[in-house]
Amino acid sequence: MARDRRREPGRGGPTRRQLLLGGAVAGAGAAVAAGADALTRPGVAPPSAPEPLAGAGTVPFHGTHQAGIATAPQAHATLVALDLHEVTDRDALRRMMRLLSDDAARLTQGVAALADSEPELALVPANLTVTFGFGPELVRRALTGSAAAPSWLRALPAFTVDRLEAAWSAGDLLLQIAADDPVTVAHAQRMLLKDTRSFATVRWTQPGFRRARGSEASGTTMRNLFGQVDGTVNLEPGTADFEDLVWVRDGWLAGGTSLVLRRIRMDLDTWDRLDRGGREQSVGRTLSNGAPLTGTHEHDEPDFEATTAIGFPVIAEFSHLRRARSEDTGQRIYRRAYNYDDAPTGGEVSNSGLLFISYQADVDAQFVPLQQRLDELDLLNEWTTPVGSAVFAIPPGCAEGGYVGETVLA
Amino acid sequence: MARDRRREPGRGGPTRRQLLLGGAVAGAGAAVAAGADALTRPGVAPPSAPEPLAGAGTVPFHGTHQAGIATAPQAHATLVALDLHEVTDRDALRRMMRLLSDDAARLTQGVAALADSEPELALVPANLTVTFGFGPELVRRALTGSAAAPSWLRALPAFTVDRLEAAWSAGDLLLQIAADDPVTVAHAQRMLLKDTRSFATVRWTQPGFRRARGSEASGTTMRNLFGQVDGTVNLEPGTADFEDLVWVRDGWLAGGTSLVLRRIRMDLDTWDRLDRGGREQSVGRTLSNGAPLTGTHEHDEPDFEATTAIGFPVIAEFSHLRRARSEDTGQRIYRRAYNYDDAPTGGEVSNSGLLFISYQADVDAQFVPLQQRLDELDLLNEWTTPVGSAVFAIPPGCAEGGYVGETVLA
Repeated sequence: MARDRRREPGRGGPTRRQLLLGGAVAGAGAAVAAGADALTRPGVAPPSAPEPLAGAGTVPFHGTHQAGIATAPQAHATLVALDLHEVTDRDALRRMMRLLSDDAARLTQGVAALADSEPELALVPANLTVTFGFGPELVRRALTGSAAAPSWLRALPAFTVDRLEAAWSAGDLLLQIAADDPVTVAHAQRMLLKDTRSFATVRWTQPGFRRARGSEASGTTMRNLFGQVDGTVNLEPGTADFEDLVWVRDGWLAGGTSLVLRRIRMDLDTWDRLDRGGREQSVGRTLSNGAPLTGTHEHDEPDFEATTAIGFPVIAEFSHLRRARSEDTGQRIYRRAYNYDDAPTGGEVSNSGLLFISYQADVDAQFVPLQQRLDELDLLNEWTTPVGSAVFAIPPGCAEGGYVGETVLA
Repeated sequence: MARDRRREPGRGGPTRRQLLLGGAVAGAGAAVAAGADALTRPGVAPPSAPEPLAGAGTVPFHGTHQAGIATAPQAHATLVALDLHEVTDRDALRRMMRLLSDDAARLTQGVAALADSEPELALVPANLTVTFGFGPELVRRALTGSAAAPSWLRALPAFTVDRLEAAWSAGDLLLQIAADDPVTVAHAQRMLLKDTRSFATVRWTQPGFRRARGSEASGTTMRNLFGQVDGTVNLEPGTADFEDLVWVRDGWLAGGTSLVLRRIRMDLDTWDRLDRGGREQSVGRTLSNGAPLTGTHEHDEPDFEATTAIGFPVIAEFSHLRRARSEDTGQRIYRRAYNYDDAPTGGEVSNSGLLFISYQADVDAQFVPLQQRLDELDLLNEWTTPVGSAVFAIPPGCAEGGYVGETVLA
């Protein structure tokens, strides 16, 4: 979870950053903080110390699990997939992951990368996390002895809705770089890609975004670009269900998980032709607050038995809400999605969609049956098209001095 | 300038938004605000009312000048240029600008567009501004009687450094859509482009970013992706110089200005090979805080006469700082730039640069001589390449009930 430096005034980190960012920071920061305070809370004297800036928040890099999964989603995330060079063998993979882990550990704490060419850009960590994923080919090259690849580490089965493009699919190594500040993401991405230069080339880059930090109350479920409340039913970090269903238990992936990326193009132009009632029917939830059509609050339990006066189910059989729900509670996944919005081409008004990202201990047991239900019959399929797809094994985290991937590469 | 709703608790705007955003907002918002407060300021009791969210800030749309110019730069800005359909005549232009102005007025105040398909996405204005610009062809179609186009409204003269691509250059109508929240920008962009659908097609879209709101102290000069402090010497909104040098005084553009866009590709990969001393020489400023090489603070006046022990100027002749400086104070411009960071292709590690955006009353008298000096001799040209270029007339603002462009289209 995001740890904000303001809670640990004794750490001293911001001071060095503030010095490096120039004298203006301390002065103007104090004035702004005091000004805002005086305006909102008359009668309270301004504090003598400047308030720490939102950009100073850090998330620990080291730990049992990699960061960026149970971490509250930051405003920006860029996913980058790389293809390994032919010559990148197991020893080279180990060197690469050492370099990457070392720089990720620094950058996430607001410290310049080892060979940082723009060290000043590293001084605003803004809750930066870097999460590494291994594709099938990387794992094949890494394995020795009796270690085995998880059975689910391969391309997903073909779904009838898929219109996959190679340009958005697959990959040997994944970097998920996420922070509340877009400059922080851009800088970290560049420093980490420099580390990979001798080992791999960029296959695709997919930047995504959510609401800015502070735009909405913490804990607000995100809306996608269809305007839908998206992600109400989700595993919740910190719960026993999350621990059970997200983390792998055995083998070199113990403490790790899997990441499924689906780039889902949303046809906003045809969606717009559907009226509000039709949209709510297709999802099974109200647009205003995401409540199931049988309830009044977002988190109300849907009543699939409820019928209208003329006997039709209130939540339609073909609604996304009903199709996504399984009787089997073991089929749940943890979603951590981002919007994307690329430049429209030709006569279109938008080229937008969702970077659907889910984490689960077992892709075949959790994600695949869910997607099969949606593939068979989900009214939303009318307006959405998966154009990219990838599966990665997410190794466990590492301790200080270690590196991500050491459980298979050491 | 950004006006935050927190300063006007009587306006009541947030209440409607909070209702529409669901009960979670008021509840969780209060808890978060109170929690943060208690952690940072022990002994002060949490306030009873929730603090307004950063996303609630609004900038007035109506006024003498268009918003988005003197407005403190928001974290995100997308520039969109459109090509007019052949059949879009003066009457059609008037209809289009009425539609656009009306929806921009709503969206910037956190109100859904007139035919908003996702009204809930409009409820976080996040200091949204929409600024309209007219290219040469639009103005040609708009003019009647004795009204004339400004002499500078045409493609810039060719500079030897230019490697312009049509895909990033020119355009008939410009939208500059800027806000502190990327979802807000995406939604506004889509609603406004829907308004233009019968009149024009998208020519290019250029999204840019700066530090997130709250990442750094307000008033911190931005750094570009070279890590340079970029924009120290700039006209300052609110000063007499700004009023004199930015706003056009006469004719249908009175109260308006011009916008020059230069898409400047920055070759970060070769820049990295230059050592820190070489970089500072090329700019004439320190990288650590942007001070001129003859000074210690960012805003110190450079001493162009100072020489080193062996007689060379401390601030080199060919440095960007010296070349950008004119003896003629009338040649100053107002810069409001954004970074861009596109997906790298081929073997490159980055595809990044700067959306250089400047405002000035007269392009030929202010921007062109400056660019000519830089074109002739500026060491930074070694690592930067202008790949896009456009000039737009920015009409004055309008009053409530009016529309942008009415001074030439009415």
